[in-house]
Amino acid sequence: MNLTLAQAEAAVKAAKEKAAALNTLMNIAVVDAGANLIAFVHMDGAWLGSIDISMRKARTARFFNMNTGDIGQLSQPGGPLYNIEHSNGGLITFPGGIPVKDSKGMVIGAIGVSGSTVENDHAVAEAGLKAIS
Amino acid sequence: MNLTLAQAEAAVKAAKEKAAALNTLMNIAVVDAGANLIAFVHMDGAWLGSIDISMRKARTARFFNMNTGDIGQLSQPGGPLYNIEHSNGGLITFPGGIPVKDSKGMVIGAIGVSGSTVENDHAVAEAGLKAIS
Amino acid sequence: MNLTLAQAEAAVKAAKEKAAALNTLMNIAVVDAGANLIAFVHMDGAWLGSIDISMRKARTARFFNMNTGDIGQLSQPGGPLYNIEHSNGGLITFPGGIPVKDSKGMVIGAIGVSGSTVENDHAVAEAGLKAIS
Amino acid sequence: MNLTLAQAEAAVKAAKEKAAALNTLMNIAVVDAGANLIAFVHMDGAWLGSIDISMRKARTARFFNMNTGDIGQLSQPGGPLYNIEHSNGGLITFPGGIPVKDSKGMVIGAIGVSGSTVENDHAVAEAGLKAIS
Repeated sequence: MNLTLAQAEAAVKAAKEKAAALNTLMNIAVVDAGANLIAFVHMDGAWLGSIDISMRKARTARFFNMNTGDIGQLSQPGGPLYNIEHSNGGLITFPGGIPVKDSKGMVIGAIGVSGSTVENDHAVAEAGLKAIS
Repeated sequence: MNLTLAQAEAAVKAAKEKAAALNTLMNIAVVDAGANLIAFVHMDGAWLGSIDISMRKARTARFFNMNTGDIGQLSQPGGPLYNIEHSNGGLITFPGGIPVKDSKGMVIGAIGVSGSTVENDHAVAEAGLKAIS
Repeated sequence: MNLTLAQAEAAVKAAKEKAAALNTLMNIAVVDAGANLIAFVHMDGAWLGSIDISMRKARTARFFNMNTGDIGQLSQPGGPLYNIEHSNGGLITFPGGIPVKDSKGMVIGAIGVSGSTVENDHAVAEAGLKAIS
Repeated sequence: MNLTLAQAEAAVKAAKEKAAALNTLMNIAVVDAGANLIAFVHMDGAWLGSIDISMRKARTARFFNMNTGDIGQLSQPGGPLYNIEHSNGGLITFPGGIPVKDSKGMVIGAIGVSGSTVENDHAVAEAGLKAIS
């Protein structure tokens, strides 16, 4: 099973609406089971540096099948995955990336959001996720 | 002036329809005046290697304000721009990338398409362009 | 709106004068609204490693429309943006990068300075900024 | 001996004037004896993709102490330096890069120009060179 473009577009649409509801400007990226980019949008005026970050959050979430923020808990100084961000050409491990699972719990992709506080980023990613799960 | 997300999404939609009409599976990328990615979609089953190529075509078209295929005419062995592809982190200079201009002729972004023959790629990019110009 | 070369050169000139007044040797970079390099100078004898850092500071400031030092406050261990520096091909998040805004408050570019203490780097960037705003 | 910033700025100024005289929009880069960037300007409206190319031309000319176009003669298919462009993170070997020598013939830096035909690029680089030699 793999995330479809139709699912990715539904996630992006819901995420954009949530971003607007929060009065934020977001970059929203969706990757498939192979961690390849399937859909992306940059809202007008959103941070340019968050284009790349949203994609890295999505990939990071799929690479390890967990929320990016959970990895960030483990990558702190003294932690078991200290500086894991150096792998895979650069990971982003703060909140905003969430895996997408099918009805059996298999990870079929991930969504990554960047453009505001990490709390808002995560909330927008969750809104996108809910549209397809 | 800069390309808006609304314009980029209209271009992507038209390009997807053209891709379907041609019975092809495409990756479609749109960049703004600063060559930053604004919108992207990967049609289900399209070549994975063309995700990156579609983005590079869009950036290349914006970098030089011309169709990617026109640059490829100049970058051949013995040509004036031989191996220009090594610049800017890697250019793609075969057809499928087209600049987007505003009503005054200013370049405000570009569209890049990859997934089939370069003729089809270019035709799909043109269909996307027509939707917003 | 976008930063012009005339503005960038005025900023560079003022920054060089401030650097001399502080008895420092600086690298000074200016990027436009698209985070593309518009002007750069390396003062004779300035640190070679700061050539790249000055450019990254300018890009980082434009990427997130804030002073680089403010991002560095958030990217510390335990902070919400821990290790954000791994994105965008490498960010620099200590002081010395400042966004440039037009009269309406729109970000039209950024200046980045590196070559001395971060306090001096920031002071020189501010001097450059003042020449054009 | 090394190229000074004063020399680099004189070269940039002369190159900009020549670019204007030719009715072109150029990116102009100057590197020192260590192939490090000393001065750079992007003329308003010049190709964004030529920012990187001008810098690569300058570095390439210093790396081998010869005009970039001369290297391009040797890097063609079947030639002795075929695809040398793959080295050093990416070389540019078509005209527009020229070494700068001191009065004893020692190479102390290089100038690279990109933004028009390779003939114009080279002419503008030569105008910059003449201002300091």
